[in-house]
Amino acid sequence: MIIGKVTGSIVSTRKQDNLIGNKFMVIEPLQAESKKPKQLVAIDNIGAGIGEYVLVAQGSAARIGCNMPDAPIDAAIVGIIDDIGKLEQ
Amino acid sequence: MIIGKVTGSIVSTRKQDNLIGNKFMVIEPLQAESKKPKQLVAIDNIGAGIGEYVLVAQGSAARIGCNMPDAPIDAAIVGIIDDIGKLEQ
Amino acid sequence: MIIGKVTGSIVSTRKQDNLIGNKFMVIEPLQAESKKPKQLVAIDNIGAGIGEYVLVAQGSAARIGCNMPDAPIDAAIVGIIDDIGKLEQ
Amino acid sequence: MIIGKVTGSIVSTRKQDNLIGNKFMVIEPLQAESKKPKQLVAIDNIGAGIGEYVLVAQGSAARIGCNMPDAPIDAAIVGIIDDIGKLEQ
Amino acid sequence: MIIGKVTGSIVSTRKQDNLIGNKFMVIEPLQAESKKPKQLVAIDNIGAGIGEYVLVAQGSAARIGCNMPDAPIDAAIVGIIDDIGKLEQ
Repeated sequence: MIIGKVTGSIVSTRKQDNLIGNKFMVIEPLQAESKKPKQLVAIDNIGAGIGEYVLVAQGSAARIGCNMPDAPIDAAIVGIIDDIGKLEQ
Repeated sequence: MIIGKVTGSIVSTRKQDNLIGNKFMVIEPLQAESKKPKQLVAIDNIGAGIGEYVLVAQGSAARIGCNMPDAPIDAAIVGIIDDIGKLEQ
Repeated sequence: MIIGKVTGSIVSTRKQDNLIGNKFMVIEPLQAESKKPKQLVAIDNIGAGIGEYVLVAQGSAARIGCNMPDAPIDAAIVGIIDDIGKLEQ
Repeated sequence: MIIGKVTGSIVSTRKQDNLIGNKFMVIEPLQAESKKPKQLVAIDNIGAGIGEYVLVAQGSAARIGCNMPDAPIDAAIVGIIDDIGKLEQ
Repeated sequence: MIIGKVTGSIVSTRKQDNLIGNKFMVIEPLQAESKKPKQLVAIDNIGAGIGEYVLVAQGSAARIGCNMPDAPIDAAIVGIIDDIGKLEQ
């Protein structure tokens, strides 16, 4: 899993039917190496808010582990980190 | 998922039989880190047009989530983003 | 697999139900290329301690190989390296 | 999928039994970011020639989509691109 | 698949039970981009020796293609390259 910060959300009206009902959150990985912030989009079943630090699972773990094995999902917020203090730089 | 911009399409006459009927769109990820634009090719079942910003699912999510579990597809456009304004740099 | 050093752990109270009971360790890959240390989070079934060097499996190998096929896990500590001496730089 | 140029082939006499009969082509991705050309090796069922531009599927899509679900294959040439003109830099 | 050079091996006494009996070889990819050599660890069923150039399969191809579908393995040596001459830089 990677650690990321929720920085926003995305709205997609025209999308695959099996994505309907999901929230798409924009995640900035904690260790972005470039100057430009690198972003990914993850679904959120946990209820993470903007500004929170989260654990993001990627790959088949995202759809299978979140009980959506047939959905085109490759990233999911799977936990909210209690205290990011020691990890932030 | 990643956010990308549709920049073109690819024609492949000689291809695997289980790819016939798919559109191959060229996608430029929103946060390309290098000076040269980095590109990937994704199938499109949504009807995205050139210039539109899209959500792209990668890995097994692309073929399984798009109901083509037996096709050699590792990237698919799964949604069109309504408003990219706040994310663009 | 990659070689990494266990540098800490993460607590996540609000998380997916199928993650309950797992320890989340912060891993710094041995060959971090950037100046900022790059980190990932892996579950630990082996009992690795902070400062130990470990083998980390990623992708579907992490959840299937660790007997949690339905959990949203994409990285797992699968071995503790006896002697890292020759590999460290 | 990524776009790559076929630059050569690899011979491997000692290999896993379930790889016997496959051609191993060396592929240089179109958008190699580094000065050193970056290479990957993909099997070829299409009959791509050296110098041709191809679509390469990676991950589980390569083995499952090419009807070799039990072979240790993580990249396959799945199409030959008709005209690379507009994409080349 | 990627091309790599076998540079050593790793011993892990405390490891997951379903890894027992495997050899863990340290692989340096042929096109390491950074000054520090980048390394990964792959299991070896072929009998590759230190200094040999090998084909390494990654992801689910490693465990499924090497007949260890339930082991936490994400990289495997699947072939030894006969002649690396033309590829080396």
